[in-house]
Amino acid sequence: MKVKVNRKAHFNAAHRLFNPNWDDAKNQEIFGLCNNPYFHGHNYNLVVSVIGEVDPDTGYVIDMKILKDIIENEVTSKLDHKNLNMEVKEFATQIPTAENIAIVCYNWIREVLPENLELKITLFETERNWVEYPA
Amino acid sequence: MKVKVNRKAHFNAAHRLFNPNWDDAKNQEIFGLCNNPYFHGHNYNLVVSVIGEVDPDTGYVIDMKILKDIIENEVTSKLDHKNLNMEVKEFATQIPTAENIAIVCYNWIREVLPENLELKITLFETERNWVEYPA
Amino acid sequence: MKVKVNRKAHFNAAHRLFNPNWDDAKNQEIFGLCNNPYFHGHNYNLVVSVIGEVDPDTGYVIDMKILKDIIENEVTSKLDHKNLNMEVKEFATQIPTAENIAIVCYNWIREVLPENLELKITLFETERNWVEYPA
Amino acid sequence: MKVKVNRKAHFNAAHRLFNPNWDDAKNQEIFGLCNNPYFHGHNYNLVVSVIGEVDPDTGYVIDMKILKDIIENEVTSKLDHKNLNMEVKEFATQIPTAENIAIVCYNWIREVLPENLELKITLFETERNWVEYPA
Amino acid sequence: MKVKVNRKAHFNAAHRLFNPNWDDAKNQEIFGLCNNPYFHGHNYNLVVSVIGEVDPDTGYVIDMKILKDIIENEVTSKLDHKNLNMEVKEFATQIPTAENIAIVCYNWIREVLPENLELKITLFETERNWVEYPA
Amino acid sequence: MKVKVNRKAHFNAAHRLFNPNWDDAKNQEIFGLCNNPYFHGHNYNLVVSVIGEVDPDTGYVIDMKILKDIIENEVTSKLDHKNLNMEVKEFATQIPTAENIAIVCYNWIREVLPENLELKITLFETERNWVEYPA
Repeated sequence: MKVKVNRKAHFNAAHRLFNPNWDDAKNQEIFGLCNNPYFHGHNYNLVVSVIGEVDPDTGYVIDMKILKDIIENEVTSKLDHKNLNMEVKEFATQIPTAENIAIVCYNWIREVLPENLELKITLFETERNWVEYPA
Repeated sequence: MKVKVNRKAHFNAAHRLFNPNWDDAKNQEIFGLCNNPYFHGHNYNLVVSVIGEVDPDTGYVIDMKILKDIIENEVTSKLDHKNLNMEVKEFATQIPTAENIAIVCYNWIREVLPENLELKITLFETERNWVEYPA
Repeated sequence: MKVKVNRKAHFNAAHRLFNPNWDDAKNQEIFGLCNNPYFHGHNYNLVVSVIGEVDPDTGYVIDMKILKDIIENEVTSKLDHKNLNMEVKEFATQIPTAENIAIVCYNWIREVLPENLELKITLFETERNWVEYPA
Repeated sequence: MKVKVNRKAHFNAAHRLFNPNWDDAKNQEIFGLCNNPYFHGHNYNLVVSVIGEVDPDTGYVIDMKILKDIIENEVTSKLDHKNLNMEVKEFATQIPTAENIAIVCYNWIREVLPENLELKITLFETERNWVEYPA
Repeated sequence: MKVKVNRKAHFNAAHRLFNPNWDDAKNQEIFGLCNNPYFHGHNYNLVVSVIGEVDPDTGYVIDMKILKDIIENEVTSKLDHKNLNMEVKEFATQIPTAENIAIVCYNWIREVLPENLELKITLFETERNWVEYPA
Repeated sequence: MKVKVNRKAHFNAAHRLFNPNWDDAKNQEIFGLCNNPYFHGHNYNLVVSVIGEVDPDTGYVIDMKILKDIIENEVTSKLDHKNLNMEVKEFATQIPTAENIAIVCYNWIREVLPENLELKITLFETERNWVEYPA
């Protein structure tokens, strides 16, 4: 049976929820306060989960120092203290909801993670709202 | 791949664990302190999880404001500051254990949630004891 | 300089906020949901803080095992899984608000704690509401 | 002896740390990532603490529902989902560090709180950084 | 549908990550600070999850008092305040990483848990690193 | 009025509670499980609090990046992944209880902190036991 290992990281960012194909009234109706044109922000907590076999030589699925570096290089360095709408090109064409941020983080990490390891992303937007991908 | 979104809520309630088909000795043996006839209580924390496709127009699986309203209407307004045994008809015929409360919350929300969305309930009775339904 | 040591405990209880000198309308106005005559309940978290000199032989202000036993004997055994209004005589004549419960816990522990040690009580009624005595 | 009661609230906001009297190099040296001109943001957690005598009729220092309303009217409604630099006039002339936000919150609440009650503000910018005013 | 019940426990232990088949340089390269020959330690938090049908007579999947006793007998009494490498025979031949500790806890509890109940172990080594078995 | 700023850090270490002036029976009686000669360990959480005036140019009492570096240089680098009894000379002559570790951390940081700033240390040995110095 496989083991899942989990590593928590965090980053702070500003964002705005806004669909450029809609007029102001529709954006306000759907996104409410989150549509503030001056942006608002969050302390995002990110959990990266990796599933695989335990290597009998190390007792590890993946070395946590390696996973920590991957998270830093692939996610934190790109999102921490950033304005997601204006500074992260992935959100030029999709709305930076928690759902979409989680999918972007998944795709970034998936590219550098060895293929034999499964990946799952959990993203906390606040202590009361969070998302998981894949479900 | 689908995304799971999670929303946390809480309510305070009193309850008593007691099977009316058993005598006092049997209830005391099985339920111990939880069988106190004067009731005791908990701060329940509830996590409602919804699984579905991300809508490309909103970036949402479900609007958190809608999910928050569903939780308030279907669960919190019925259970908060209530005596579960004496004031909630679902517990007239079944014991208000964490397991059964979670199933009742699931059934209430399932009725109003669109069919294409999957549902999962996590109910914390204390910081150290919690249940999930379905498993 | 002195050191403060802190020990966390918890108990579950039912209560009702109600002033017998007032009529129903006044109780409802002041206490709202908390006045439910069928009771509601909480998971109380209690922090007992003790201030004193560090004993050079043990490196302790007070042995945590001793403090743990004091909390169990003086507080938890009297309040856990109880109905505060109906089963704890201190609340026959005063309302079991968080403020009054904290003062009662203080008085119980103060009686058995050596005089050279200062005492402070923090009582969490929920994760968002808590009280400290003395302030 | 008096009792301290504490109530937790939260709000999300965007901000930028920047001193208009300094040039870019100096701002970058002092504020680093926090000087991002496109803003970043936080989930702020706020604890409002009120110290006073317990009213023997209610068992309360202050009714938590009243304190909750004060926090909502005086703080949350002004800061939640806002850009602190651009939308809150108090930060037109002072930098929205955690220290200054806490002082602003204190001043807002102090104006409406009865004089016989002492006030203290704790503001969490992240889980690892927080400030208290007065110290 | 089945319900999953979860119970949290904790224990403190010392350990060292070290593969006796490797030389010092290789151990240092792979395990870094965790290879300190004088040991270091953790407060481990353990969540034991049990999946099964709800018994209609008790409303329980498993009585939490029984599960608490199982965890105490099968895990806590063997690991709490111990040096994992030197005092726990399971780690004489495998490295006490979080992955391997979780598998050992699983095997210990699996032996005494009724066959109709599924089992899952979550082990937190720190607040930021944890593992789950089976994945 | 002054502001208090707080910064949280953590380190993992092994220790043993043992008074070399006592015989084995006395050490066992006083320190119990904590006297295990093979050591046990903890994830220590450390909060360093600094009290001072807010600098009007920066809005800071102290720059958190500077405080973070002080904690890393003066505390974490000396204690993380260490055996306190065998590798930290301050504990050659005093017992590494939470009380004494907090005092040692205080003394280390006090030496490098500007004199106009007050200092306070909070050290969590577990989630349920912690100490503060000065009280």
